[in-house]
Amino acid sequence: MLNNILENALVENLVKIFPRSPLQQNSLQESDAELLHLPGTDSTIALTTDTIVEEIEAGLYTDPHLIGWMTVMVNASDLAAVGAQPIGILLNETLPPDVGEEFIAELQNGIHDACSICGMYVLGGDTNFSSHLQMSGCAVGLIPDSAAMTRRGCGPGDYLFSSGPLGLGNAYALVHLMNNSELKQIPIPYYPRARLSEGQLLRRIASCCMDTSDGTLATLDQLMRLNQVGFVLQTDLSEALHPSARLLCNAAGIPEWMMLAGPHGEFELLFTVPQERVEDLESRAGQYSWQPLKIGRVVEDCGVWIYQNGERTALDTGRIRNLFVEVKGNVNQYVKELFRLDKEWKNKQEITHE
Amino acid sequence: MLNNILENALVENLVKIFPRSPLQQNSLQESDAELLHLPGTDSTIALTTDTIVEEIEAGLYTDPHLIGWMTVMVNASDLAAVGAQPIGILLNETLPPDVGEEFIAELQNGIHDACSICGMYVLGGDTNFSSHLQMSGCAVGLIPDSAAMTRRGCGPGDYLFSSGPLGLGNAYALVHLMNNSELKQIPIPYYPRARLSEGQLLRRIASCCMDTSDGTLATLDQLMRLNQVGFVLQTDLSEALHPSARLLCNAAGIPEWMMLAGPHGEFELLFTVPQERVEDLESRAGQYSWQPLKIGRVVEDCGVWIYQNGERTALDTGRIRNLFVEVKGNVNQYVKELFRLDKEWKNKQEITHE
Repeated sequence: MLNNILENALVENLVKIFPRSPLQQNSLQESDAELLHLPGTDSTIALTTDTIVEEIEAGLYTDPHLIGWMTVMVNASDLAAVGAQPIGILLNETLPPDVGEEFIAELQNGIHDACSICGMYVLGGDTNFSSHLQMSGCAVGLIPDSAAMTRRGCGPGDYLFSSGPLGLGNAYALVHLMNNSELKQIPIPYYPRARLSEGQLLRRIASCCMDTSDGTLATLDQLMRLNQVGFVLQTDLSEALHPSARLLCNAAGIPEWMMLAGPHGEFELLFTVPQERVEDLESRAGQYSWQPLKIGRVVEDCGVWIYQNGERTALDTGRIRNLFVEVKGNVNQYVKELFRLDKEWKNKQEITHE
Repeated sequence: MLNNILENALVENLVKIFPRSPLQQNSLQESDAELLHLPGTDSTIALTTDTIVEEIEAGLYTDPHLIGWMTVMVNASDLAAVGAQPIGILLNETLPPDVGEEFIAELQNGIHDACSICGMYVLGGDTNFSSHLQMSGCAVGLIPDSAAMTRRGCGPGDYLFSSGPLGLGNAYALVHLMNNSELKQIPIPYYPRARLSEGQLLRRIASCCMDTSDGTLATLDQLMRLNQVGFVLQTDLSEALHPSARLLCNAAGIPEWMMLAGPHGEFELLFTVPQERVEDLESRAGQYSWQPLKIGRVVEDCGVWIYQNGERTALDTGRIRNLFVEVKGNVNQYVKELFRLDKEWKNKQEITHE
């Protein structure tokens, strides 16, 4: 069932000939970071690697400070999702030979500022020159008692939370990639912060956790497939959306669910908490002035449901996830297809009401 | 003095604003892999990252199996140079969208075969699509008693060894990048194997160690600057050269020292051993049927000297290292400049003899 998703199938195909390390605690796709038991210790290290290249090529990230920042954050966010204490990051910078000094300085400033806010250190790296700018990181963190969070473990009845408001990543992508000067006036404060302290707090409370690096629906879809459960989003969707994403929806006439659909995430954590632990979560979170958003509930049947105009609507999250790959990353076509999906549901609802 | 080398200056410039982690045991440039003490344990983990992109863009690596193999080996070799037990590697694969299935299969086979021979596992990774093929790895290893080897620690009188014959990397590069159909007939068996078991054996014996990933002279130059010592290569150079490199020199009329000069390495280890430990080294190495090559001696004065036609010649290794950057990677011009250097020395020798 995991492999109905094109991206999962691709990864499965790439790794099929590789044996798993006996030290590795997580299975494929089961965890945001790789969990490695260190022989001779009680410790687990969390390792993860992520690259910023498609966002650069698509023109989504142009500001060098943001590129540096994101190089750190996409990796730090994986550490957050397993509840690791962050240690540091190694960098792979592939720079165009003619890149200016100012650009490099800003790139490094972005890395510096992101590390600083994450409590992480740059540990080392490799620098190469090539016509195409590409930035990779490999982050390492520690789980002292080896009790990491993974994407697996939720059951029916658990509550679904988000660490913060959703949809800012896709709002940012829409404003930057669509040719619409009116939309470009809407300020989108996209500078994600990995939820590292929240992740560590959640480690003993949440039954599963995953970051929204690929957007909210992709995250829910993956959790659904891994846990063989469903999610009913209970809140009025507006309440879970970032105000800027809401503003964009109103200004551009975009249905709010689309802010959860696109593949450009906001790096919040989606996590589930058994009913009896919810009070504990809320009291501990309160100590850190953190307000996780209760956005839904885990149900037995596989699927993802949202409420639209008071109507419960099943989302075909698998179809939505594959869409971006199927249109080969063409944003205009992608948005058109999402509108077509929206119309399909509305037609269905109208038929039901007649 | 380190920063007289353009590459060192570049790295220094990139990292100058980053604070060092209090857990990190090595200083900048001091070690092939980053050495990180794990809090609450006696262990040190070794982490390193390296990218294969310039070699692909230059047309040096075209065979996908070799590209996969090298992605693992360049990283594994850094683990070898600090004496770490290899654990595994995370991969960052940036693939062109139109890459064929067969190409990907061979790429993954190369990774598989290299990991298998190194006793390493693929732990995870990230896959992206971009017009430019680029492969990165991030390898992790363990140093149980925290006693890593570094590039620092040799003193005058120590013997200089190589883990194996040198020059194959530059021979390969010359044959592949020069437009000379005659040279292309010479078989160059370039499939480096990271010296992992040798590195672990050396950990308690060698006074310093570094791999020849950037070529032999660059390695000696860096060790010279870090330790403020010099190296006199004592052997007849031919004996230290790989037979294929020697064959190429004879066939093409290239002076043998040039096989040590270029920046494309063969991933052997260069290491130094105090006189009183040499016997120990040789007896332990013998148990593994390994014959390290004794290639020179550490001296007090900074510099690198070779013997050519019985004459002791000082090599300006700093100038040689910077040359490749100065000619912007133009191989033909680079080789021309090396020949010019060779002529300079010969003229000097003739003048001395008159």
